[in-house]
Amino acid sequence: MQDRIRNAALHQRIMSAPEAAAMIKDGMVVGMSGFTRAGEAMAVPLALAERAKTEPLKITLMTGASLGHDLDKILAEAHVTARRMPFQSDPGLRRAINAGEVMFIDQHLSETVEQLRTRQIPGVDIAVIEAAAITEEGGIIPTSSVGNSASFAILAPKVIVEINTAQPLSFEGLHDIFIPTYRPNRMPIPVVTPDSRIGLPYIPIPPEKIAAIVLTHKQDSSAAIQPPDDETRAIAGHLIAFFLNEVAAGRMDNRLAPLQAGIGTIANAVLHGLIDSPFHDLKMYSEVLQDSTFDLMDAGKLTFASGSSITLSEAKNAQVMPEFERYKSRLILRPQEISNHPEVVRRLGLIAINTALEVDIYGNVNSTHVMGTQMMNGIGGSGDFARNALLSIFVSKSTAKGGRISSVVPMVSHVDHTEHDVDILVTEHGLADLRGLAPRERALRVIDNCAAPEWRPLLADYHARACKLGGHTPHVLEEALSWHVRLRDTGRMQP
Amino acid sequence: MQDRIRNAALHQRIMSAPEAAAMIKDGMVVGMSGFTRAGEAMAVPLALAERAKTEPLKITLMTGASLGHDLDKILAEAHVTARRMPFQSDPGLRRAINAGEVMFIDQHLSETVEQLRTRQIPGVDIAVIEAAAITEEGGIIPTSSVGNSASFAILAPKVIVEINTAQPLSFEGLHDIFIPTYRPNRMPIPVVTPDSRIGLPYIPIPPEKIAAIVLTHKQDSSAAIQPPDDETRAIAGHLIAFFLNEVAAGRMDNRLAPLQAGIGTIANAVLHGLIDSPFHDLKMYSEVLQDSTFDLMDAGKLTFASGSSITLSEAKNAQVMPEFERYKSRLILRPQEISNHPEVVRRLGLIAINTALEVDIYGNVNSTHVMGTQMMNGIGGSGDFARNALLSIFVSKSTAKGGRISSVVPMVSHVDHTEHDVDILVTEHGLADLRGLAPRERALRVIDNCAAPEWRPLLADYHARACKLGGHTPHVLEEALSWHVRLRDTGRMQP
Ligand SMILES: CC(C)(COP(=O)(O)OP(=O)(O)OC[C@H]1O[C@@H](n2cnc3c(N)ncnc32)[C@H](O)[C@@H]1OP(=O)(O)O)[C@@H](O)C(=O)NCCC(=O)NCCS
Ligand SMILES: CC(C)(COP(=O)(O)OP(=O)(O)OC[C@H]1O[C@@H](n2cnc3c(N)ncnc32)[C@H](O)[C@@H]1OP(=O)(O)O)[C@@H](O)C(=O)NCCC(=O)NCCS
Repeated sequence: MQDRIRNAALHQRIMSAPEAAAMIKDGMVVGMSGFTRAGEAMAVPLALAERAKTEPLKITLMTGASLGHDLDKILAEAHVTARRMPFQSDPGLRRAINAGEVMFIDQHLSETVEQLRTRQIPGVDIAVIEAAAITEEGGIIPTSSVGNSASFAILAPKVIVEINTAQPLSFEGLHDIFIPTYRPNRMPIPVVTPDSRIGLPYIPIPPEKIAAIVLTHKQDSSAAIQPPDDETRAIAGHLIAFFLNEVAAGRMDNRLAPLQAGIGTIANAVLHGLIDSPFHDLKMYSEVLQDSTFDLMDAGKLTFASGSSITLSEAKNAQVMPEFERYKSRLILRPQEISNHPEVVRRLGLIAINTALEVDIYGNVNSTHVMGTQMMNGIGGSGDFARNALLSIFVSKSTAKGGRISSVVPMVSHVDHTEHDVDILVTEHGLADLRGLAPRERALRVIDNCAAPEWRPLLADYHARACKLGGHTPHVLEEALSWHVRLRDTGRMQP
Repeated sequence: MQDRIRNAALHQRIMSAPEAAAMIKDGMVVGMSGFTRAGEAMAVPLALAERAKTEPLKITLMTGASLGHDLDKILAEAHVTARRMPFQSDPGLRRAINAGEVMFIDQHLSETVEQLRTRQIPGVDIAVIEAAAITEEGGIIPTSSVGNSASFAILAPKVIVEINTAQPLSFEGLHDIFIPTYRPNRMPIPVVTPDSRIGLPYIPIPPEKIAAIVLTHKQDSSAAIQPPDDETRAIAGHLIAFFLNEVAAGRMDNRLAPLQAGIGTIANAVLHGLIDSPFHDLKMYSEVLQDSTFDLMDAGKLTFASGSSITLSEAKNAQVMPEFERYKSRLILRPQEISNHPEVVRRLGLIAINTALEVDIYGNVNSTHVMGTQMMNGIGGSGDFARNALLSIFVSKSTAKGGRISSVVPMVSHVDHTEHDVDILVTEHGLADLRGLAPRERALRVIDNCAAPEWRPLLADYHARACKLGGHTPHVLEEALSWHVRLRDTGRMQP
């Protein structure tokens, strides 16, 4: 335990999870570690759910992003989560959000701590942070994610640390904790390449603030992604052909530009596709590092990856963790404020690859709301990246639910990314390069290149009739959302 | 003329506007100066319109933003403008855009030159730039706007300069021309306060590139804004009460934070409201500096203003220009890439005040498309600022067209700014502080505080019925755009 809790005075703060959880009172704002199912505190939230069985206990729960181990489900079903920000991806919590039982504040992931710091939103009363170790000075060494943990711990008056002995001590040195100076005296954030190290390897807080230490031993949840299939392989193929063309046109060289890839199956599959490509010396400046990051490193394609978390499948985890030292010099985990920061994303000129639920013929993207109303996960970092990237690419399968849904629609039922922030759309059928095009031109490309063949005539007919009515962005307003109305009423978009 | 064209060798390039315009060929991409009706080249575009009467001549026209002197109308009606980017505000051009005759590429104003530089869009064949003077080294001293002029002149192989002797030589030293280093080696943009000077007082280009010099003598068009009225005064009043409250809550002090204010009547009126407020030592980091900037300086409230252009009413212009030296040390004009840069906007922590055409109950904003289809002006810089500001405020009158239109609607017919980018909404009826709220909570505030009283019952009824259907962002999809359909069909939104 000396190597996990190096400040001797702190050993007396070790206590059970229920004892630590007792510090969390009804109505508090709690900032917990955890980002894309990696590095979340677990013992204390489980103790909270237990306590809520016998006493009123409702909190505002802030995290980095999604939690593993069904924690969001457990906390929602125990009615502990009254308010939740800035992201989630849990079916149980999702149900409660869509029923209006939990107030979900869906945010750009780079912005939450900026709002906390300027007290635009209620402050964190207590932080609960998973750590690999605590240094002699009280510094917290995070585990498989940084997320918002650093700012939560710095801003909260009290911190509960969960020391997770299942997380390897070899994580030490992986993290780069940098907090921007406060405005009005903020200086530039000095990240100038994906591998810039600008901060400390631990979260610096005064040891007095550590109110409790709980010992745990748990593995991260495994990534919930599907292996590549024919469609995701086709998407990857179109993208690689596009990159080859960019290189041929002299717009980039074979090292491309630093890559960001969103969460989920499709983005992971697209990165996988780069293994068999002529590109090399690639770098990532992304949010979550998935299996594909390590596969690309193993294939000798990727020389560096910066992210805010590592989320692997069970198999990949079993391979990577024992030999983690071999990867460590090529990895940095940063606070999500920095991994997603508009300043850095724009400076580095990323190629941002994110997933759409649906797109419309003009290139607007819905990443969050099924039928314009039902929250799926949240906007996450997609806005941070899409707005500021060199190239903003959205990928999606052209249909969903066995063909009952066209993911290319006349008008998206909810807008997360406007046409200004969408350069390239890709489905298994092809790629639409929308750069420099006006809406009427964009529509033709999106319909012809991206929609599923069976939906093209309907989309083309809509667009032609809309153009007759006129406008810069022509629409037949009474039909614009009719595909979604049909889906809601009949379970399919087909007329 | 020696003081206007200081490089003697360049005197031989002086020619008539039609001679210079002859260098512009059919199909070219032309980058012209001009931003919010300030500092546009005029003689050459007028010569182009003339020439188009007798020969086929279609160009892609890029500018900083809107042009004065009806140039956009004249060029559109002469069918010279085939493609147009990144902004416009001309009724004649607007008609052609909405008829599908001119392809308009509506862009975030900070992004156009980034796309040019990386060759994501076709390059500028020739630049036409209004200047106060040319230095000995060939440097171009801009006039009342910088806009995209610097990058156009640097990137184009040929430059036509219009020396406008009506623009005072006292503009020299006003501008701060900085071009970010090219990626992948880009360094931080070193603006750390609104008054940071980081560049040159002229646009540096080799004098050989100056292919023609045309002498002109013209005033800028006057600002087309209305004086404050009862409603805009009420909006200003609500905002000032809000700022007072922010100060009382300790979130800012009486100097507030650097201010950005959008184009148009309402934003100008809001700034005007600050004259009779307890705030002092204010600074602006904005795009266009309107009458209100100078009024605030005269009132001793504003100590510094950074922008990309100066657009004044006739009366204000007559007062300011003769004594320009008195203001100059408190002013900087920058390229719009820098005045609007996400990196700088986020670093400085601006209070961004922009105008909405319509807002919806969940706080999404439409700034551009009447009835979701008809382009008004363009997104302009509103996205650059709203996304990255400390506080993103949108203002609007609660109704339009004599009450026939509610500017608060169930669902905006076009989204320019999503709920994530909108902190505060203000109409003459009140202010909705949406920070940290979930969509269902936002709706109650928007309806109660911002909608016109006669529209509140309809909006509340919609929202209540939508909540019964469920969802994180509840909607009755078949009714969501029905107010706009009624407006289109009957000329009013009333049922
Ligand atoms: C959009 C997003 C949900 C896609 O996830 P994914 O795992 O790659 O994609 P899938 O195709 O498996 O789709 C996920 C689900 O949405 C459904 N779906 C896809 N398109 C749909 C559509 N147009 N309408 C309704 N449902 C749709 C799928 O059927 C699937 O449902 P299931 O869970 O019941 O099987 C996910 O990428 C996301 O949450 N994005 C927003 C956050 C983000 O982009 N972050 C990026 C920075 S990390
Ligand atoms: C939104 C915008 C058009 C408002 O301009 P404004 O001059 O302040 O506001 P006004 O209330 O005078 O409205 C302008 C016109 O829109 C009309 N209008 C306003 N709300 C409307 C609505 N909900 N539906 C239809 N028309 C509406 C007005 O009636 C007026 O029409 P008119 O020209 O026929 O009189 C303008 O601010 C804009 O173009 N914004 C986008 C760009 C931007 O924000 N840049 C900011 C960074 S500089």
